[in-house]
Order: sequence, then structure tokens, then C-alpha cells
Amino acid sequence: MVVDDLVKHPGSWLSTENDAGVVVSSRVRLARNIRGIAFPGWAGEDECVKLCKGLREALKKVPAVANALFMEVAKLSPVEKEVLKERHLISSEFAERGAGSGLVVTGDERIAIMINEEDHLRLQAISPGMNLLSVWEEINAVDSELGRHVEYAFSPSLGYLTACPSNAGTGLRASVMIHMPGLRLMGEVEQVTKALTRMDFAVRGLLGEGSDAYGNMFQVSNQSTLGENETDIMARLIQVVDEVVRQERNARARLLESRRSFVMDQVGRSFGLLTHAGLMPSMEAVDLLSTLKLGVELGLVRNLTAAAIHEIILLTQPGHMQKIAGKILEAQERDETRAKIVKDKLRGVSLSK
Amino acid sequence: MVVDDLVKHPGSWLSTENDAGVVVSSRVRLARNIRGIAFPGWAGEDECVKLCKGLREALKKVPAVANALFMEVAKLSPVEKEVLKERHLISSEFAERGAGSGLVVTGDERIAIMINEEDHLRLQAISPGMNLLSVWEEINAVDSELGRHVEYAFSPSLGYLTACPSNAGTGLRASVMIHMPGLRLMGEVEQVTKALTRMDFAVRGLLGEGSDAYGNMFQVSNQSTLGENETDIMARLIQVVDEVVRQERNARARLLESRRSFVMDQVGRSFGLLTHAGLMPSMEAVDLLSTLKLGVELGLVRNLTAAAIHEIILLTQPGHMQKIAGKILEAQERDETRAKIVKDKLRGVSLSK
Repeated sequence: MVVDDLVKHPGSWLSTENDAGVVVSSRVRLARNIRGIAFPGWAGEDECVKLCKGLREALKKVPAVANALFMEVAKLSPVEKEVLKERHLISSEFAERGAGSGLVVTGDERIAIMINEEDHLRLQAISPGMNLLSVWEEINAVDSELGRHVEYAFSPSLGYLTACPSNAGTGLRASVMIHMPGLRLMGEVEQVTKALTRMDFAVRGLLGEGSDAYGNMFQVSNQSTLGENETDIMARLIQVVDEVVRQERNARARLLESRRSFVMDQVGRSFGLLTHAGLMPSMEAVDLLSTLKLGVELGLVRNLTAAAIHEIILLTQPGHMQKIAGKILEAQERDETRAKIVKDKLRGVSLSK
Repeated sequence: MVVDDLVKHPGSWLSTENDAGVVVSSRVRLARNIRGIAFPGWAGEDECVKLCKGLREALKKVPAVANALFMEVAKLSPVEKEVLKERHLISSEFAERGAGSGLVVTGDERIAIMINEEDHLRLQAISPGMNLLSVWEEINAVDSELGRHVEYAFSPSLGYLTACPSNAGTGLRASVMIHMPGLRLMGEVEQVTKALTRMDFAVRGLLGEGSDAYGNMFQVSNQSTLGENETDIMARLIQVVDEVVRQERNARARLLESRRSFVMDQVGRSFGLLTHAGLMPSMEAVDLLSTLKLGVELGLVRNLTAAAIHEIILLTQPGHMQKIAGKILEAQERDETRAKIVKDKLRGVSLSK
């Protein structure tokens, strides 16, 4: 089974080769539909199955995804769906769908295409670090090439038509995951997220829509898809993310300058708990790992990389743990297993003197 | 200076040779006054100085304290007074007094006599573990011997007369320090302390009257000193302490039986924080060390004794740290120093596999 292999390594977009220390990942997705065919929510099962088959064939003609993997949602177990959600490859809504919905995903997970989610197509490119322009170019190329083989539902006045009007126009949602522990420790997160909201950007927690912001991870994305072209949307988001990164770096510098013992205490406590707790709940793990990542980036931790922390966060998600264990784990078993994985992965790591 | 030597080692009553794992220490004190002389609160300075001199001479004739140390309160620095309070050798009230008040204390700190506190004499014996009867016998012997050389204020109907009526009669206050982490983790501390109060015992926190119960340490003592003879007071306290110890042991057994992972998690977390925090506030330190002590007594920790934990608790009190540092430490410096001492003392300690 494909998912068996996925859980063995982190998605390449978590490898942090371009990690700015602040932007964890960059993602762009395009919503597209096929002219003359009902949106998945209205279409019958047969229609969905037929369309899915047709789209798979069309996608084989697109070089970037010609050799991609394919998974039918209906054949995935609940745990496997969790794994794919945790890897940001599918949405919760997609996981609920039945026959005729499928995922096309490249081996490196940089490109993932959901067929028959809310729209016929959700094309996504994701990359570690601050790489909005390159993921935009990647998915734009897939979109253009696929457009030669299928006919998109497009209106000259409205742009791309989508099941939900909030996606109409460009169908573009660009987002970055920003890690803001410096701003949090300085008590300035709220003023930053409020400013972003006022500028019409959406700010969400680590696990997407409706999730709380924990681990000091925030998804920032464009709110509107209509009335602005793709280049302007991307430019505006890049500009604002650069500003948030500048503020986070500034907060970190001020922390080191004026509150060094406090930061070292916070990093030390996080490390101490991660390496000694016997039960480690999911949210606490992400919070502690977030502070430890700050420590790594400030040079307070030895023998650990930010990429390794991202991997631990992923491997200790409920879906990943259960997939690896090969069985359903009860709440306490999950907390025990998570504590063991974290300790194991942090072996050999120490605080700088 | 005498206090310089004191801070270098724990009081012998912290050595836990008889530590039941539950009762940390046993203490008995007797309030006594000299016939025909005003209580210290009413007496003039000259009168106090004269009495103090006379009592010192009388005490030299009592074998148990013939070679004891003597310290004048007026010559002690604020930090030295803190040290003596933290070692349970003097009271806060005594520390405020001036000329004519002094402390007689044996080298092993088992017997400490405050001259001119609230009463002319406060005779105390203290010992590690559950040793109420032997400390009672010890201080009773001092009291009887001293009674041959001075004339106590005594009324055939009321018994010993004291400055505060709450001490009149026997002048006896017997107390034990009980460590109840098992009952706390089982959520049963309150029902135990309430029952003790109903039975007319006083229950106080680690640092005596008015202090909160932290570190799960509770001082249990007789409330009334009148209308019951010494033997009955001691018997009733011993009986109730034995019952509390039984309940604490029972709680620990139930914890290990039904909530083993929870206890191991709590012990692990405490150890992780103690060995990795950069700033360690006083109350948190005592709480964490309390849980670690439970771990030691349940066999979950290697290379550490309960006595060593008692020593860390003492050495990280503000007075002791400042005396050892030789200077006044600001709040953050204290938390940094405390964190360093704790880490240093726990070097080589580990959690059992």
C-alpha cells in the first residue's frame, strides 16, 4: 500500500533546505472544474467515477505528474486518510468522499491533485521554506499543461468557476506556514495576526481551517480570489510574509538581547519535558517542539536540526503513529507512544553550554 | 560566624535515617517562662538582657545543651536570620526581636532553645522521620533538668503560664512534617486535612503558620495545650499520624497499581524540568522535588536518596543561597542560582528504565 511507504519518511517539503527559520512551508493550490459537468457535490456517483477516470488519463499527459501515484479515497482506511491529512496532501472534506474521488501525488509529495473534492480538481504544490514563487510556477505549469487536454469551466467575466463562490476567479489560494515563537514570547503575536486579518489575509492554525493556532504555527493565506490577478495576489502575500518574517526575526533578536535567561529557560524546560515525560499529548508535543525549534535556530541546542523537529511533529501525529504501529491506539497509548518516539528521536541531542 | 558553618550541611534532622518515606521530621517544643519576670513583650530591654544572661548560665548546667552554640539575635544579619528560619531553628517572630534575645542550639541542631521569643523560653527538639516519642523524651529531659536551676511560672490549676493563652497548660506543641504526594495525586489530600482539622489538629504548610501547603508537605500538630496531659497529647498525635501514613502508603500503592504510567510521567516530568530549567522559582522547585521524592520512594529513580532531596530543598531556600553566595541575590538571580544548584546536585541521577 502506498501510504505504508509515505509514513516512513517526512514529506520532502519538510526538509527545510530553504527554511528561513521562520517560514516552514509554502503552498499554492488552484481550484478547477470541467466545463459541462456538475460539481462533485451535485454529480451522481457514476458521473464522478467517469470524470475521475478521464482526469487521470489527462494528468498522465502532464509531464510533472505523469508518473505520479494514484489513490482512490474509497479504498483508504481511516488511519490512512489521517496520514494524508497530516501530510497536507488531502483535506478533511476530501477524506469523507466516496467512489470517484482520488488523489494523484508525486513521489516527493511536492505536487498533489485531489480529483472530486469540492471542485473537480484541486491542484497543489508545496515546498519547504519561503518558496511561494517557485511553487506558484510549478503548479501554474501543471495547470497550463492540463488545460490543453481538458476544457476548464471558465467565464470571461468571473474567471474560473468553482463550487463555492469564495474560490471563483483565480481559484488560487496561496499560503505559508509561519513559525512565530519569538513574537509569542514577546507577547506580540496577536497584534501581528490582527494586522494580517485587517489586510484581508486569512490566519489559521497548524491544521488548517477551524484549528487552533498551537505550536506557534500560523497559516497565512490570501482571503479573496476574485478581482485581483494571480501575480498581484502572490506579490501582496510575499510582501506581507516578508514583513512578518522581519518582525519575528526582530522579536528573536530582542529576546536574545534583553531576555536571554528567559529564552534559555523556556528552551531548556521544553527539552527537559520532551526527553522525560512518559505521556505526551499531541498539542503539548507541538508546543514544546516549537520552542525547541526556536532554540535550534538561536544556537542553543546541539545535534538537532529544524528539519528533524518537523519530522518529529509529523511522525507523532495520530495517523502516522497508528499507521506505523499497524493498529488503532487508544488515547493513552498514543500519548505513551508519542513520548517514546520523541525521546528516541532526541537521543544524543543536548542543550548548548 | 556560626551560621557560616550551618549552611554547609543539612541539619541532622534531615538525614532521614528513620524516614518512613512519609514523615519527614518530628518536632516537639515547650513554652516556658520564669516566675516573677515580665513576658518578653512587656519587659524592658535591660530586663531581657539580664534574663537572657541568667538563662544561658542555667542552660550550661543542663548536660544536653552544656556545649551548645549561642547566637544573639541582634548580631545576626537578615540573611542569617533567614537561614535559621529555613532550618526551623527560630521563628519569624524571634527574628524580629532585639537585644536580650538569643538562640542556644546544639551542633547537630536537634535541640534549639529560643530565649526571649514570645515566651522566656521555647525549648525544641527535632529529628528526621517519625520520632515523636524520642524527641519528646529528649526535650522533656532538658525541661526537667533546667527546672532544677530556674523557677518556672506555673499554676497548679492552669499549668505552665505563657504569654499567649493558647500555649498555657502543658506549653507543648508537637508536630510532624508529613509528605503526601500520593494522596495529592489521588485527589484525596483535602479530605485528609479536613478530617485532621475536625479532630482538633492544626494543619499548616511547609514553612509554618500562615504558609501555603506546597511541595505536598504538611505540618500536623496538636491544637490545644490545655486540659490534656503531655502523654495523652503525644499519644493522640502519634495515633493520627500513623493513620495518615497508612492512608498515604495506601494511596501510593493504588497509584502504582492503577495509574503507573501517570505516576511515571509525573516523576519524569519533574526530573526533566529540574535538570533542564534555567530559572527555577522557589515554590516550583519544592513541588517538583516533592514529586521526585515520591519517585525515589517508589523505586522509579536511580542514584538519589530522599535525604539528598531534603538537602536540595534546604540549600535552595533564599537565605541559604544568599548566605552561600555571600551576597544579596535579586529575584531572577535567585531563580538562576537555584536552577544551577538543583542541576548540580542531580548530576548522575537518572530515571529507572
